[in-house]
Amino acid sequence: MTALIVDGERLVRRLKELGSLGVDKDGRLTRLAATDADKLGRDLFVRWAKEAGLVVFIDRIGNIFAVYETSENAGAAPVMMGSHIDTVIDAGIFDGCYGVLAGLGVIEAVKSAGIHLPRPLVAAAFANEEGVRFTPDMMGSLVYVGGMDVEEALQAVSIDGKLLGRELERIGYAGKLNPGFLTPEAYVELHIEQGPILESLGMQIGVVENLQGISWQRITIDGVANHAGTTPMDLRRDAGYAAAKVMNFVHDLALNHRTEMVGTVGSIHFEPNAINVIPSRATLTVDLRSPREERLLVAETALADEIISISNALGVTVRSETLARTQPVEFCDEIVDRIERAAELRGFKCVRMTSGAGHDAQMMARLCPTAMIFVPSARGISHNPDEYTPDGDLINGAQVLLEVVTDLASEH
Amino acid sequence: MTALIVDGERLVRRLKELGSLGVDKDGRLTRLAATDADKLGRDLFVRWAKEAGLVVFIDRIGNIFAVYETSENAGAAPVMMGSHIDTVIDAGIFDGCYGVLAGLGVIEAVKSAGIHLPRPLVAAAFANEEGVRFTPDMMGSLVYVGGMDVEEALQAVSIDGKLLGRELERIGYAGKLNPGFLTPEAYVELHIEQGPILESLGMQIGVVENLQGISWQRITIDGVANHAGTTPMDLRRDAGYAAAKVMNFVHDLALNHRTEMVGTVGSIHFEPNAINVIPSRATLTVDLRSPREERLLVAETALADEIISISNALGVTVRSETLARTQPVEFCDEIVDRIERAAELRGFKCVRMTSGAGHDAQMMARLCPTAMIFVPSARGISHNPDEYTPDGDLINGAQVLLEVVTDLASEH
Repeated sequence: MTALIVDGERLVRRLKELGSLGVDKDGRLTRLAATDADKLGRDLFVRWAKEAGLVVFIDRIGNIFAVYETSENAGAAPVMMGSHIDTVIDAGIFDGCYGVLAGLGVIEAVKSAGIHLPRPLVAAAFANEEGVRFTPDMMGSLVYVGGMDVEEALQAVSIDGKLLGRELERIGYAGKLNPGFLTPEAYVELHIEQGPILESLGMQIGVVENLQGISWQRITIDGVANHAGTTPMDLRRDAGYAAAKVMNFVHDLALNHRTEMVGTVGSIHFEPNAINVIPSRATLTVDLRSPREERLLVAETALADEIISISNALGVTVRSETLARTQPVEFCDEIVDRIERAAELRGFKCVRMTSGAGHDAQMMARLCPTAMIFVPSARGISHNPDEYTPDGDLINGAQVLLEVVTDLASEH
Repeated sequence: MTALIVDGERLVRRLKELGSLGVDKDGRLTRLAATDADKLGRDLFVRWAKEAGLVVFIDRIGNIFAVYETSENAGAAPVMMGSHIDTVIDAGIFDGCYGVLAGLGVIEAVKSAGIHLPRPLVAAAFANEEGVRFTPDMMGSLVYVGGMDVEEALQAVSIDGKLLGRELERIGYAGKLNPGFLTPEAYVELHIEQGPILESLGMQIGVVENLQGISWQRITIDGVANHAGTTPMDLRRDAGYAAAKVMNFVHDLALNHRTEMVGTVGSIHFEPNAINVIPSRATLTVDLRSPREERLLVAETALADEIISISNALGVTVRSETLARTQPVEFCDEIVDRIERAAELRGFKCVRMTSGAGHDAQMMARLCPTAMIFVPSARGISHNPDEYTPDGDLINGAQVLLEVVTDLASEH
């Protein structure tokens, strides 16, 4: 197997070509799900897959599957690779696209080497992973594994007021196949880390053994707007100060459990938001993540308790709503071991790690044995045009994917 | 003198009538300086002053002076009362208007009683006190006392892109007189407290002996935007968390000196302000006020030091700009004593206090002996349609004004 080599130069070239499609009028790479820009990206992937001699299937939610099946392995459960090619607004060129195009490259390497594997190979591009235009995110894979009804998903309304089902028809990607039509033997997703850990540790490959659970809350604090100059400190009911207390608490809570928790207040809004008025209302979001469900539950409870004491101490009312909640996902030990072994055999410096972000792999893990491979992201930057992974790292990751997948597909 | 009684019923009726003018399409009382709505208010005040037989003067910056002069006292320095009749957006009916209309009522009471005072009386309505449409605030009185050149002020550009000079001409209030054309013997401003102190102490009259200095800063914190899920707590440069630290510090600083300081963070903005992105930038405002300049300087230095330590501890860069800075103002002891005496003689519960808000009186204090009288504001609410002072309190305040002013105008 070690003779098989992925075509790294082609992979890098394709990433750039795909990344050149869907640039908006402000010069930002923006291929939101089921837009004309998304269609451009999809058409290119489909063209490359067909040029490689693969059969392309589209399911009802718009997931694309490029399948390499031979007469010898037809009907066997395939090994699936994949990710997504939709993007956020003002995106980088690597997020998602890397896993999809590396999957295609792996299949091409196997096919052109004339190797006969006991299992078919699939490179999948899942629909609407980013969730920017239609919620929820990871929709294509969620629907694929049966976590959301396809009819319901097709009724999703975009931020620009369009129905997903109609938009998929419009761009020509409303397929006939029912999501879940293929049950893979295994699913392996290659992705940029989107975080700084590999780079800061000087590692080349991240062996992703689990994925954090995510708890998103919106916290709304109601106080009393009063004149900033005439209201003594003791008589204030300052929603802004209460928000600062929550922000401190979230930060310290995560810092105290830093090896297995992160916590972020990423957005805030004050009303009336005037320099000389005590805020009557502060709205902020809390993003808590942990690879351990128990830790996440404890943190949520601690935050709820803190909210009550802040509310009592400051005379404000505080309410919180859950915006999203996913449980941590444990990936398949056996695949994780294979990834580590493949990386080590190639002499790549690798480390076992947790995925901090959500990925289609977390959905696919419900359906079949699954794991992920990460490569470094420069400065951890993602969802940004500065997103960057050196070519060498991209090629290393694709090579590990190739070896793990051919390994998995060699067994029956 | 005690036989002189202000017509309280008329004062209350006029406040309501003036407060009914300048309601915008959303039903909000909004008489921004030098707008058509402001003209409506000005025209009504001028009409009432002329109906009372007073001579009305307009100066170049649009200040209105209703003068009651007799052949006996012509040429003597007048005792001036006043405030402003421009409003914020979605204002209450009392702020400013109360002091102007009470001044008019005092003159009418003196005039109709046929009393001959050694000094003329003036009720002034200063232009653009609120500073919402044109900056700076308290512009009319600032220009009047020579703190800003009238030519420069007339070049001020409004939030809707108009020149103040042209707008004053358009509404017919670009007068010919130079600001400062009359130097008063004394200035007394009656105003609602706009704070909760009198109400919470059960007092009827606030004897305002000084006015807080104001320090306004904008603080801009630059960190690094990164993925909220994939960036370990130790590797973050979180501008939002740094902002929370500043907010806490400002609050605690003011709370530690609560008898002579207030501190507020009234406005904040995060970038990119997304639930799952560590804020790259936080912009917040700090409003610090104290009646003691020394205290304000110490607080500003402490905040500057804290900013340096936050910046070092969190790896963010922090810069601050001064948006406004005024020194505390001490009012005239003698007038303050007279106010207190007048209130006590009438049996009103009164307390000496500091003005937390800025007022035209702070400008007039540069020109002549000055003090202020406060009446309670229900729940301290101001700059809001819920602004409210009971009729009895309004009438009490006007009566104290009448007695102090006739007292001051009786001496030569």
